[in-house]
Amino acid sequence: MAQTIDITLTTNKKEKPPENKLGFGIYYTDHMFILDYSVEKGWYDPRIVPYQPITLDPAAKVFHYGQTIFEGLKAYRTKDGRIQLFRPQKNFERLNRSNARLSIPDVDGELALQALQELVRVDQDWIPSAPGTSLYLRPFVIATQAALGVAPSTEYKFMIIMSPVGAYYAEGMNPVKIYVESDHVRAVKGGVGEAKTAGNYAAGLNAQQAASEKGYSQILWLDGVQRKYIEEVGSMNVFFKIDGTVYTPSLNGSILAGITRDSIIHMLKSWDIPVVERPITIEELYEAGANGTLEEAFGTGTAAVISPIGEMNWQDKPLVIRDGSTGELTAKLYDTLTGIQNGDIEDPYGWTVEVKQ
Amino acid sequence: MAQTIDITLTTNKKEKPPENKLGFGIYYTDHMFILDYSVEKGWYDPRIVPYQPITLDPAAKVFHYGQTIFEGLKAYRTKDGRIQLFRPQKNFERLNRSNARLSIPDVDGELALQALQELVRVDQDWIPSAPGTSLYLRPFVIATQAALGVAPSTEYKFMIIMSPVGAYYAEGMNPVKIYVESDHVRAVKGGVGEAKTAGNYAAGLNAQQAASEKGYSQILWLDGVQRKYIEEVGSMNVFFKIDGTVYTPSLNGSILAGITRDSIIHMLKSWDIPVVERPITIEELYEAGANGTLEEAFGTGTAAVISPIGEMNWQDKPLVIRDGSTGELTAKLYDTLTGIQNGDIEDPYGWTVEVKQ
Repeated sequence: MAQTIDITLTTNKKEKPPENKLGFGIYYTDHMFILDYSVEKGWYDPRIVPYQPITLDPAAKVFHYGQTIFEGLKAYRTKDGRIQLFRPQKNFERLNRSNARLSIPDVDGELALQALQELVRVDQDWIPSAPGTSLYLRPFVIATQAALGVAPSTEYKFMIIMSPVGAYYAEGMNPVKIYVESDHVRAVKGGVGEAKTAGNYAAGLNAQQAASEKGYSQILWLDGVQRKYIEEVGSMNVFFKIDGTVYTPSLNGSILAGITRDSIIHMLKSWDIPVVERPITIEELYEAGANGTLEEAFGTGTAAVISPIGEMNWQDKPLVIRDGSTGELTAKLYDTLTGIQNGDIEDPYGWTVEVKQ
Repeated sequence: MAQTIDITLTTNKKEKPPENKLGFGIYYTDHMFILDYSVEKGWYDPRIVPYQPITLDPAAKVFHYGQTIFEGLKAYRTKDGRIQLFRPQKNFERLNRSNARLSIPDVDGELALQALQELVRVDQDWIPSAPGTSLYLRPFVIATQAALGVAPSTEYKFMIIMSPVGAYYAEGMNPVKIYVESDHVRAVKGGVGEAKTAGNYAAGLNAQQAASEKGYSQILWLDGVQRKYIEEVGSMNVFFKIDGTVYTPSLNGSILAGITRDSIIHMLKSWDIPVVERPITIEELYEAGANGTLEEAFGTGTAAVISPIGEMNWQDKPLVIRDGSTGELTAKLYDTLTGIQNGDIEDPYGWTVEVKQ
């Protein structure tokens, strides 16, 4: 049953940034959604308010013990003026799996989706329509109790903020260069790797910075135990087309269960292209590169959608893929997926959800 | 050279809590310290202001990507009315090691120590004097740039807040029961385990909650690779006295380099008690328990100081240590260390730093 979301509109609308200079996550819309939690009341007071700073006690647990999770999804403006979301229910299912792993109480998925739709509707003028642009939606939960004992918080805020975005990588749809990290580890089995939580990203900043200085856009993480199994790229899952079959690392507890990843697997199956989820070693990837069977490589994620990988570097051994060009299947997946997302292609999978205006 | 710290005193002092009901990290003093950072200015505007909420953009990186670190130390009121800190330089050295691991710029350790002393001086009436109490000091850094791209922040806040505290565990100096975790992992080599950063604590909340429901105060973490080497307890390093020698896990990259841990090792050496830092398996601990050579076990940390371990449970096998009583050496270490810290015992190590009043 729909709940009542209180709406306070801004009296001071911001100027919108030019659509060719959006970047990623730099500009924020005019409004945001907030829902509070206390042990006594549960989740309460759902409201849309003008986008504004939030005020927290400096002892709030999110600052000290990292009890926080987030989601990322996008709203698209179709050519005929409709607004679409892509599989938003999946995001709120994963949000609650992340919540469980971080000892954060469940958020009502229906209320969250209703809030998301209402917020997009209120700020619909912010959805850009230039090719490759969209409105990035960031639901997140933070622990707000002011207490320094290490224990789950008794108070939380669930919020949604929104940002009009262009391409996540400066490269756009051009292939990215990926550095295979051998020292640092993002996550390990038994840790929080499959939760979308802040600490996983903090752990990767050092290595990402070092890779960036060497000219690589992103890190490819190996498993934390044997340091040989491919896990994921900083903000993407990874796929490799080897000898006609598409491989992606199986969800092993330390890899994020990407919604784009799931969609790609689904699309490949529906196209009768063999796709296999299994542990993949970095050695076998290099072997496939050496014997000429490594046909394509790409990353998938909400922010980057699909990003071709043109080169990898593992222990100072470069592996150039397709001479650094985008693969045919990669391009077809990108065109089809973004086409479904932005409404240019009819959605045969029932993935899109229209936002009423 | 001492910098100028701007001081704004509160006009509205809070009522102090009764010293027998302090708990841990529940009450905060009248003032706090703030130092801002931007890429352009570096660290700037050191100031002491009334304790108050802080205002952040909801896109601040600390909420999304966990770029934050902290420290913990204590101020003590001696019987003759002096105020002492315990090895505060060590905390700021570690703070900067944590900063480096989290891609946060270095904080000037001298300025941080000056700020800490000044803040303690301003709020000196908050230092409790009842046995077992102290003023807990919490320096921390949070990433404040409002940007959703995964990259190090361009803006930070370094802050110090303070809380009058009693015993960290409800048990006080009574032995605690520890649950040896077999599923979840706190940290792994190559991760952020040796940094004092939020994500390490978030990762442990689930297991700690489950252990608590089974009647255990804390988790003992095993290594993330082989799941057999003892790492640390949730908020403490661990020591075991076996057949006259004291053992503690060596610093392997995933264990926090505790300052209390370092102090205990130093004290044991100065007492000519053999102390060995090396990898320790949970199996050998249980063997020592079975053959009667496990004489004492205790945890060490700033919050808990020294906490005897009376019972462990690994894979449903309980290991009772000394029939659950506190060991002689554990008690002597506790008495000596807390005596040095609170000024009852003369400090032979040069560890205490007096705060001018």
